[in-house]
Amino acid sequence: DAPLALIAGPCQMESRAHALEMAEALQGIARRLGIGLVFKASYDKANRTSLAGARGIGMAGALAVFAEIRERLGLPVLTDVHEPGHCAPVAEAVDILQIPAFLCRQTDLLVAAAVTDRVVNIKKGQFLAPWDMKNVIAKVTGSGNPNVLATERGTSFGYNTLVTDMRGLPQMAAMGAPVIFDATHSVQQPGGLGGASGGQREFVPVLARAAVAVGVAGLFIETHEAPERAPSDGPNMVPLRDFPALIEDLMAFDALAKARRIVLPA
Amino acid sequence: DAPLALIAGPCQMESRAHALEMAEALQGIARRLGIGLVFKASYDKANRTSLAGARGIGMAGALAVFAEIRERLGLPVLTDVHEPGHCAPVAEAVDILQIPAFLCRQTDLLVAAAVTDRVVNIKKGQFLAPWDMKNVIAKVTGSGNPNVLATERGTSFGYNTLVTDMRGLPQMAAMGAPVIFDATHSVQQPGGLGGASGGQREFVPVLARAAVAVGVAGLFIETHEAPERAPSDGPNMVPLRDFPALIEDLMAFDALAKARRIVLPA
Amino acid sequence: DAPLALIAGPCQMESRAHALEMAEALQGIARRLGIGLVFKASYDKANRTSLAGARGIGMAGALAVFAEIRERLGLPVLTDVHEPGHCAPVAEAVDILQIPAFLCRQTDLLVAAAVTDRVVNIKKGQFLAPWDMKNVIAKVTGSGNPNVLATERGTSFGYNTLVTDMRGLPQMAAMGAPVIFDATHSVQQPGGLGGASGGQREFVPVLARAAVAVGVAGLFIETHEAPERAPSDGPNMVPLRDFPALIEDLMAFDALAKARRIVLPA
Amino acid sequence: DAPLALIAGPCQMESRAHALEMAEALQGIARRLGIGLVFKASYDKANRTSLAGARGIGMAGALAVFAEIRERLGLPVLTDVHEPGHCAPVAEAVDILQIPAFLCRQTDLLVAAAVTDRVVNIKKGQFLAPWDMKNVIAKVTGSGNPNVLATERGTSFGYNTLVTDMRGLPQMAAMGAPVIFDATHSVQQPGGLGGASGGQREFVPVLARAAVAVGVAGLFIETHEAPERAPSDGPNMVPLRDFPALIEDLMAFDALAKARRIVLPA
Repeated sequence: DAPLALIAGPCQMESRAHALEMAEALQGIARRLGIGLVFKASYDKANRTSLAGARGIGMAGALAVFAEIRERLGLPVLTDVHEPGHCAPVAEAVDILQIPAFLCRQTDLLVAAAVTDRVVNIKKGQFLAPWDMKNVIAKVTGSGNPNVLATERGTSFGYNTLVTDMRGLPQMAAMGAPVIFDATHSVQQPGGLGGASGGQREFVPVLARAAVAVGVAGLFIETHEAPERAPSDGPNMVPLRDFPALIEDLMAFDALAKARRIVLPA
Repeated sequence: DAPLALIAGPCQMESRAHALEMAEALQGIARRLGIGLVFKASYDKANRTSLAGARGIGMAGALAVFAEIRERLGLPVLTDVHEPGHCAPVAEAVDILQIPAFLCRQTDLLVAAAVTDRVVNIKKGQFLAPWDMKNVIAKVTGSGNPNVLATERGTSFGYNTLVTDMRGLPQMAAMGAPVIFDATHSVQQPGGLGGASGGQREFVPVLARAAVAVGVAGLFIETHEAPERAPSDGPNMVPLRDFPALIEDLMAFDALAKARRIVLPA
Repeated sequence: DAPLALIAGPCQMESRAHALEMAEALQGIARRLGIGLVFKASYDKANRTSLAGARGIGMAGALAVFAEIRERLGLPVLTDVHEPGHCAPVAEAVDILQIPAFLCRQTDLLVAAAVTDRVVNIKKGQFLAPWDMKNVIAKVTGSGNPNVLATERGTSFGYNTLVTDMRGLPQMAAMGAPVIFDATHSVQQPGGLGGASGGQREFVPVLARAAVAVGVAGLFIETHEAPERAPSDGPNMVPLRDFPALIEDLMAFDALAKARRIVLPA
Repeated sequence: DAPLALIAGPCQMESRAHALEMAEALQGIARRLGIGLVFKASYDKANRTSLAGARGIGMAGALAVFAEIRERLGLPVLTDVHEPGHCAPVAEAVDILQIPAFLCRQTDLLVAAAVTDRVVNIKKGQFLAPWDMKNVIAKVTGSGNPNVLATERGTSFGYNTLVTDMRGLPQMAAMGAPVIFDATHSVQQPGGLGGASGGQREFVPVLARAAVAVGVAGLFIETHEAPERAPSDGPNMVPLRDFPALIEDLMAFDALAKARRIVLPA
């Protein structure tokens, strides 16, 4: 029943300066609004649509920046891991290890993340039913780590399209994992631009509000001061200037939803 | 920006006595809660899964009961029509003609409903994209009747399953028709019981709340004093005893949503 | 185990002259190839995407033409019906009454078609699983008419897209109804052109060949001497000049498939 | 236009003895039928539904067995890789590196496989459109390795269900990569048994025949002398005793399909 938490940041860690700037800006917004913030950035976009897609500044450089953000700003940070061997070093610099949706069935990666004892945020695969997440979560909890978050980010619906099934949110909550709604990737149009993925930024407030009203522990939203210049996920990132109003809106719905919780019959 | 309206009633008009009882009970609830009510019942379930499925009391009997409900209780009433020739006689007894989802592309039916000058509520076909409703609505408005409602009731998603795409609500609203969310049929599992359709009543509050938070003009919810005895749609009807709390909950979210409207960029 | 039969013709009955011309051309092709032919045309396109879409020459005019085709050419004919009241008059002029996919759950229409004692060809709704057709077929057979054909024409797959699940062909065959594959509407892109449906004519040979190899009783293929001028379904109709080679190809696969039948385990 | 090739073997390398026995049995069948054979087995099932699912004998042990099969039987072998670091050692023992469907967007894995200069067989993700494979294939060819196979294995269709879109086969062939149809995983029901995936073995001949008739370079079919005892994919593996008749059937359709190739218009 804790109030909504926020996982936010740019899609990629573009540079030390950019990451720090974004983290400070988001921290300012979160403080003004009174919402808990985890800073998110990816050090490597390992599954770009095309070989030519920019992939970020790499692990070594990024881990130093994450450490700096934690120390200077006191912000918890999250990043995604793509290979079992990356989990241990990344865990030294971040608070939450995120398992990408395409990789949510990779046992070795889940176990490697689990044994770091960091919180593990698992994105539900686009190819999974909500109830399939039970086995996925159990790969982490069964490895001795009870601190699992489950993130909804849309389900394959025909070609180049995702749909969000709001029924999945309470179904996953019933598994015991706090549920995060990823409003950025839920509006992605995978492969929709030919050589890159498209997106429908205008539906971020729509789906986020629906999810918050149903009831979620947190939101995952990527933002950028100039999405049209962002190296990835630009079409579905929310401009930073629109971010405070969006979050304020969602907090109002969260307050109501937390006062009136939906619990599925057992 | 008007507050939420409610279209409610049993799936079928089972008998005069049952319809009157339900209408009175629902009117009592609506008055206590301060919500506008349209009474809904079907005089003929024309597309049951099986030939043996009960189909209701028939048109002639039902129209007299609708007239009685309007007169005695002062309630507006809605029913669904299945053939062009039924539109004119039905229109004499009801306020809103509803076009079933499977029939939403039948031009003659839409035009026949339109020319009665009653309000026409079109259920979006399970096989349509939200934007496909533009042409459907235009069949009514292009026949000289501007009073069209568009109802979301789920989209085909694999076999025997529907999914609700909340993005469709503001997309249809942008077409100018007030949007209704049908929380009863959105949780239907078509054909899911072999000889009948299954349903997931427990997700009515989930999807209804999501839709109301996104913003809708009204809700369509079927209810019954004993859904397990209802001749159709029992698994997805809300028990009457749970109805007041459900509606009160949704009105709270509606108040917030109407104060903070989402409008898609043009 | 009978060899492949062919239901073919233009989408609409555009005029008496056009229908006769097409019927004669198709009869010539069928005779040369040695394949049984049923001539198909619609007298009314009752569910066009838009109100403005052309709908054909109407019932009265069309029935006379069907009668003329049967008499002069000795060809059996098929057309689709949209309202229960049309079944009896149409049955006097045609050999097979076809139930449109959107209407395949309309009990009154199925029963009215059944009691004419004509063969009834039911198109499987885009919103149905193959096994859902059992109840649909039973509405006809349970009305005393055992002569039912079941036609596959694609299943909703995301928005504006259909997919053909070849597993459905033997599943429907196991219900006892000869199975027809509609290669024209399976490649339709419903609503895909905004005000009209698009289509992928280039995939007609692909899907038809797959279906014939799996094993079907017949094919339904629309054709036109100039699809780009056809008033409906132009993008998915096969040009008449390509028709003989297409059918010859499919007959070769049918011969092999009929010699090596797939029967699902009971 | 080369005749059909066959990639076959058990799902897992269960033991040296079992792998050799299967390889010999399959080689005998392939010789009798006159079809080219690649032996397939997985040394690690890295994405089992549950943590408790058996995962095979591990990489080191398996590579020795693959080497033995190549040397003693002269059979080319294929196995799947899950991490970039595995590609080089695995490439020393096998002829074809296979990229699992869930991992088909992982750039590092694709590039690592590409630079081994072995043939790379990419399974199309359940979440991809056929045309999305163009970028995926280009990650390998753009790394200097032109020897890419593209394998169809079904697309997400609602929950716990896959559907095979036969249109994808010529679409992928038009990209220049020989297309393989995986008849085993196309009939998988992912997560369909709760703690494991279900399968519909009875549809292997149905979908394989459809694919071969449309035209493919090869088939991927898993088989086992006792699928009910197999540690994984039992419900969708074909019993070894049924394998010769199945392949013979498919070779008959392939001969016809190769004599009558479908080529999509450019």
